[in-house]
Amino acid sequence: MSDKKPLILVCNDDGIYSNGIKALAQVAAEFGDVVIVAPDREQSAVGHSITISAPLRANEIIIAKKYRGIAVNGTPADCVKLAHGNLLDRKPDLILSGINHGSNAGINILYSGTVSAATEGTILGYPSIAVSCTDFAEDADHSGAQEAARRVIKYVLKNGLKRGVTLNVNAPKGEFKGIEWSRMADSRYVEEYEDRVDPFNRAYYWLTGKFELLDENEDADIKVLSKGKATVTPIQYDLTDYTLLDEVDDDDL
Amino acid sequence: MSDKKPLILVCNDDGIYSNGIKALAQVAAEFGDVVIVAPDREQSAVGHSITISAPLRANEIIIAKKYRGIAVNGTPADCVKLAHGNLLDRKPDLILSGINHGSNAGINILYSGTVSAATEGTILGYPSIAVSCTDFAEDADHSGAQEAARRVIKYVLKNGLKRGVTLNVNAPKGEFKGIEWSRMADSRYVEEYEDRVDPFNRAYYWLTGKFELLDENEDADIKVLSKGKATVTPIQYDLTDYTLLDEVDDDDL
Repeated sequence: MSDKKPLILVCNDDGIYSNGIKALAQVAAEFGDVVIVAPDREQSAVGHSITISAPLRANEIIIAKKYRGIAVNGTPADCVKLAHGNLLDRKPDLILSGINHGSNAGINILYSGTVSAATEGTILGYPSIAVSCTDFAEDADHSGAQEAARRVIKYVLKNGLKRGVTLNVNAPKGEFKGIEWSRMADSRYVEEYEDRVDPFNRAYYWLTGKFELLDENEDADIKVLSKGKATVTPIQYDLTDYTLLDEVDDDDL
Repeated sequence: MSDKKPLILVCNDDGIYSNGIKALAQVAAEFGDVVIVAPDREQSAVGHSITISAPLRANEIIIAKKYRGIAVNGTPADCVKLAHGNLLDRKPDLILSGINHGSNAGINILYSGTVSAATEGTILGYPSIAVSCTDFAEDADHSGAQEAARRVIKYVLKNGLKRGVTLNVNAPKGEFKGIEWSRMADSRYVEEYEDRVDPFNRAYYWLTGKFELLDENEDADIKVLSKGKATVTPIQYDLTDYTLLDEVDDDDL
């Protein structure tokens, strides 16, 4: 970090016009200069999708007078890659993604564009934090999520963050009631699609599904959230299962 | 497993009409009954994207006389979810995804729709294997990848697979020259976008980028592949970094 104020890149998956990203930019501005680079429309559940077969456009927009805002016709991971490669005058000191409208805890982490934007930041070598709030409403009360983000940003600016690790923050809606370190809860969706028929009598399927928590650990992110507290889970992009790798032998294949 | 032959679901991200999926179905047929459920068009680099805001269609198609084939207008993860929830007469005993045209090793694992289809299978509780070959050509020589797949399928049918773990197989093009257990190589892309101008003088960006290997471990998947051998990497969907979690304290936040 130079003697300049830290440069903080803010992204999300709900799109650049969502209230959540403004709430996060507001917190970021307490710590440094803010540039928002985010999808020009909602990109929920795109996971770590990137755009390889089409060109990307980046347009400067005004979303709040104090921040530079750039809308990209791509995914959250695209936004971070493009900001890193082409859009910023200097390299960011921190990447934030969110505040997502809806939590990204348990298995939802895998589907989340918001988390993937932060993971992409980590891959590129930047300290990166994803922030989500359980409230899906467009006018969600993000005050607790903002305080959780504030504490985790402070922690990262003070302690740094090990290469390869992203911090994934979730908060209940409304006021802040504490924050705990947590693990990603084992979970899944069951009974997944509604089987419907269109006006032309052809079948189609619409994703629905009930969320199923498979984790009894008290430090599972979803458990901690259900007690009314915010959570911060360190997640890694190295997916290798080293425990299994230690047990196996090439001769078994 | 009942006294019926195992039911094997085959998916991919290159689309149901690719040669790679036929090559994998051919191997799968040595072990059981095969049903192919795959995207109706190429879905590369979609990661763990799922379709939540649009209906899915599933159409029976004939791609090879011996297999049931169903084309879905969604992502690879959608295909596995929809097969699991609605399309199959009985639950599969094994899920295979591939053979991907192009390797899915190192950081590419995160962007891969082929790997995400297998991961989705793991989340839903099925033993699942992703298979990729370094050859991007539509008429790629998948013989070595087929033998690698055969050995890993045998291994899984004999030993089972721990809940939460997916096996990610990569093979060089051409003949089989051995297979080794490996880890996901730390790696990333640098110099990412070409900055171009369209016929109307407006800027656009096209993803390019050079692959950078950051891993010196001899068992890194990319290293093993470069020696001409196939690799199998156990990957987990629990992204929690337990090492960091052990070191931190709630009072630090």
